Order: sequence, then C-alpha cells, then structure tokens
Amino acid sequence: MKIGLDIMGGDFAPQATILGAIAAYKELSADQQLVLIGDKDIAVAILKENNFNPDYFEFVHTTEVIGMAEHPARAVVQKADSSISVGFKLLKEGAIDAFSSAGNSGAMLVGAMLSIKAIPGVLRPAITSIVPKLDGTLAILVDVGANADCKPEFFPQFGALGSLFAQYVYNIKNPRVALLNIGEEEGKGNVLSQAAYPLMKESKLFNFIGNVEGRGLFEDVDVIVCDGFTGNVVLKFAESFYEVAHKKGIKDDFFDMFNYEQYGGSPILGVNGPVAVGHGISTPEAIKNMIVLCKNMVESSLVDKIKSAFQ
Amino acid sequence: MKIGLDIMGGDFAPQATILGAIAAYKELSADQQLVLIGDKDIAVAILKENNFNPDYFEFVHTTEVIGMAEHPARAVVQKADSSISVGFKLLKEGAIDAFSSAGNSGAMLVGAMLSIKAIPGVLRPAITSIVPKLDGTLAILVDVGANADCKPEFFPQFGALGSLFAQYVYNIKNPRVALLNIGEEEGKGNVLSQAAYPLMKESKLFNFIGNVEGRGLFEDVDVIVCDGFTGNVVLKFAESFYEVAHKKGIKDDFFDMFNYEQYGGSPILGVNGPVAVGHGISTPEAIKNMIVLCKNMVESSLVDKIKSAFQ
Repeated sequence: MKIGLDIMGGDFAPQATILGAIAAYKELSADQQLVLIGDKDIAVAILKENNFNPDYFEFVHTTEVIGMAEHPARAVVQKADSSISVGFKLLKEGAIDAFSSAGNSGAMLVGAMLSIKAIPGVLRPAITSIVPKLDGTLAILVDVGANADCKPEFFPQFGALGSLFAQYVYNIKNPRVALLNIGEEEGKGNVLSQAAYPLMKESKLFNFIGNVEGRGLFEDVDVIVCDGFTGNVVLKFAESFYEVAHKKGIKDDFFDMFNYEQYGGSPILGVNGPVAVGHGISTPEAIKNMIVLCKNMVESSLVDKIKSAFQ
Repeated sequence: MKIGLDIMGGDFAPQATILGAIAAYKELSADQQLVLIGDKDIAVAILKENNFNPDYFEFVHTTEVIGMAEHPARAVVQKADSSISVGFKLLKEGAIDAFSSAGNSGAMLVGAMLSIKAIPGVLRPAITSIVPKLDGTLAILVDVGANADCKPEFFPQFGALGSLFAQYVYNIKNPRVALLNIGEEEGKGNVLSQAAYPLMKESKLFNFIGNVEGRGLFEDVDVIVCDGFTGNVVLKFAESFYEVAHKKGIKDDFFDMFNYEQYGGSPILGVNGPVAVGHGISTPEAIKNMIVLCKNMVESSLVDKIKSAFQ
C-alpha cells in the first residue's frame, strides 16, 4: 500500500507534515509506504535535522504550492506541478493508493473531481467530520462544507456515504442515520429538510431513524446528515467550544474528544479513491492520524463498498 | 406599566410560572404591575401555598391552554380563550404593555402576527437569542427559528432588528453586526448568504462588519445574523454543550453564561408590541428574567425605535 502525503499543505507545512510523516512511519507496517509529495530538498533537510533516514520514504518532487487562500478551481488547473495536482495525478494513475493533504480543502475537492472523479451514481461527493458522543463513541457529520447549497436528493446519498464510512472505517454496526433538523417530528424543518426527509425514509441504503435537533448531536445517532453550510457552521462552532475549554484548562474526557488532532483528517466520500483532507492548522499528531485514516480507508476497501452500494 | 404573563405556558407551568411571577414581583417597582393570564383558581391556590398575597397581581381568567406540541396556527384560531390568544387580545387592546409566555413559541409567533401584527416595513419578524462572548459580554443571534426559510432581503432587516435590540435593551453602543457564514471573505457562502452580504453591506441601519464563521461567534461581534434554520441548530447545539458541562460539574464563568435561565426569554422582534417567548423548560428564575426582559423592552421604547427605523 502506498499512501501519498502532500507535505506542502497546511499552515505549519512542511515542518508539521514531515514530523507527522515520521510519526506515522512508526505506526505503519513494512508494506505500507509513505510517498511524500512536495519539495524534496526541504523534506530531506527536515528529515536529517530529525535524524530520520530519508530512505524510509518515497519522494515525488514538485515545484509549486497551492496557497490556503487561493481560488481552488483556478489554482488546480494553473498549478499543474503543485503538490495537490501531482498527488491526484499519482492517485489516478494508481501510483499511490490514497492521497491526503492539510492544504487548501477546496483545491482538494476540485482536484478529486477533475482527476479520479465522482463514483458513478454519486450526485455530489461530501466531506465528513466527527462529532463525539457522550457515551464515548463517535458520530459522523456529513456534509461539512463540500456542498454549501444542496438539493433534497443529495441527502439520502450523504446518509449512504456516511453510513458506509461509519460501518467500514469506524466499525459501527448498522449505523443509525438521522437528518439534522429543527424539530423532531416528520414535517418539521425548512423546505429543504422537509423534502429530504421522505427521500431518506425510503432509502434502503441505511438505517434512517428520523430527525435529530441541534441538542441531540451528542446522543443516540451515528451519522448526522445536513447541508454543507449548516454542517460547516456546526463543525466550526464545536471546534471553538473545544478551544475555549482547552484554553481555560478544563480537563474532561468528553471535551477532549473535540480535539481534531485525534481524527486528523476528513475523508472526501463519493470519489473514486481514498482521499483525506486535514485541518489547516494540522499539527504533526493530526497529520499522523490523517495518514492512519487513509490506511484504514484503503484496508477497508471503502471506495469499493461505496461503488457497490451506488450501482 | 402592565406586563402580561401566560401562567399556563411551559413544561413546568403553572407552578414554575407563578413562582417566577413571585420572584419578578420583588424586582419590579410599584408602578410595574404583573397581569397573570390563565386559570385564576389554580394561580391563587399556588400563591396561597407560597404565602403570597394574590392581591399583588392582576388576573385575567382563561379556560383553554395551547399545548406545546399543538399546531400553532390552528390552535391560536380554535382556542380563542387560551392564555396565549387572550394575552395577545389584551396586548392589542392596550390593556397590557407587554406579553410573555414560555409556552408554544410557534403559537406565540402566530398570535403576534394575527393580533398586533408586524410593524409596517418589516418583512418578517424574527426571534433572537443570546450568545455569550469570551470577554464576558453578550452577542445577539437572530433569527433562531421564526423563519426556517429566508430570502436575502430578510437578512439586513434581521441585522437592523438585532442592532436596535442590542443598542436599546442591552446598551451596546453602535453594535457590530455580522453575517454568519462559511468563510470570512465577501463572496463566500451559500447562494443565500452570498446574496445577503451586499444587501447588509449597503444597509444604513446598522454597523456591518462582514462575515463571521462558526468559530468566531464568541468573539468581536455584537449581532450575528442568520436564517432561522441555522440559528436554531446553533442555539440548540450551544445549549447541549452547556448541559453537558453542567452535568459534568464543570464550573466556569463562560460556560455558565450559556445557562438560558439568566436571559429568561427571547423577544419576537418586528411586531407592534413587546413580546417575549421563553424556553419550554423554563424554571421560575427563567420566568422572572423573561418578565424583566419585557420590562426592559417597554422602558426602552424598543418597539417605537424599530418603527422609526423602518419608516
């Protein structure tokens, strides 16, 4: 297995990405090879500074970088030798089995759509995130930003993508899928959620349990489906709660579970290959966990499972 | 000044509402009279049980109650002698100066629209809530559920309503109004927020400072504008964080500020009279603070200020 890592992506790259690669190396087995994509000279220098033998990694040298604030579609097309563009080229060619980056997530989404493309039948790929639950387990929130504007028919697909991810990567049996809504009963909500509810109810691809309100996100649900605007607001709001608790020195197992570093990255679900995007502020710990997520996606054959479900 | 209270509204009514009225009595001056609307016999019995002289209050006896789960529009029309319907009749006639209830908030909104009606020029009244800030002050979130589906032109109005409320009731000078969005720069967001941004920018009714993301809600902003779906999800999500922190015994000034009891109620802004709705689970402390909110709205002539702004 070869896992590609964009070493130029993220606010603290390439230092944080390369330290993350070193940390990941220690958790990977001999047949799991990391491929570092980016400026090889800088990478080798940082590895040597850290007394780490560069021969343990493969390198693909690139000369361009897509900045965090660049326009995604424009940057992917214009910067053909950027680490993100090259990463997707390698993934498409089969030279790597998964690709991950903590860089410009819009560029990652565009790059995936232009190279490996959406799985046939998937209307819109989606990005997921993790919501800790009070019982110590995790729920999957989908979509958290790939689709700011949604049509009702996207929602059952998000439910299916989230359910397969929860099942095969997080080993949650028969995941309970809910629609994020304002009111618990069928018929509540805005026009979009009212139209999405019956479509989710009739889907045979997952176990739909109805609506969940903002106050129920920590409870008896495994996959929470929403449009990417609402999901992104909720995700960032949750992060700010964690940051406040952290800054205030509040030590608590539940609040600590909001630390994004533990999950490392979010998969882009519904594209023809395992792809993970990381938080811009990714630390080495987060990068390591993003790589582990890629490994888990490859080992679980998640992409094949999604292809079968959408046939 | 006469402040009407629906004593039948809320999960713990009439016990909690009447204990709340007793608590409020101690904070009101001699010329601020509470009018208890609901079952007078029950009210008098509870007051006597608590060794409180019923003569300190006025009573308007009603025979019907709108349940928390009833269909708002249907219930308001069919139950003409419900505490909510009668409360609005009194408000419209000028027999009371403000009306508050912790009952069915949908019915409160419908009741307001059918009786005192929206202020001319206001496209859609909105419900606000409080978001604590890290500096110990408060921000206003609007809308939190009155309008699940919004048009872009509602947003500058929400901004104006929230700004006037922040200014006159919370004494915040020149309130900074932001649009809740997924991305900080102009042009980011979903179709709705992209269309709302320029309308907010060109409004002369408030001090627009641009977009705020989910992670920035606790920071340098006084009024946060969003559609009622997103606002309701955020509000309930925030409440669940507080509940978790509370249950876990986490003592912290910031987290304690999420305790809705302190604010008691949310105003319905943009209607022709001071109206506050309370949380269904309102305790006596919350009811008391909802009454104080009504008093503050009357004293600040908030409704007149809104009328002038929307002329």
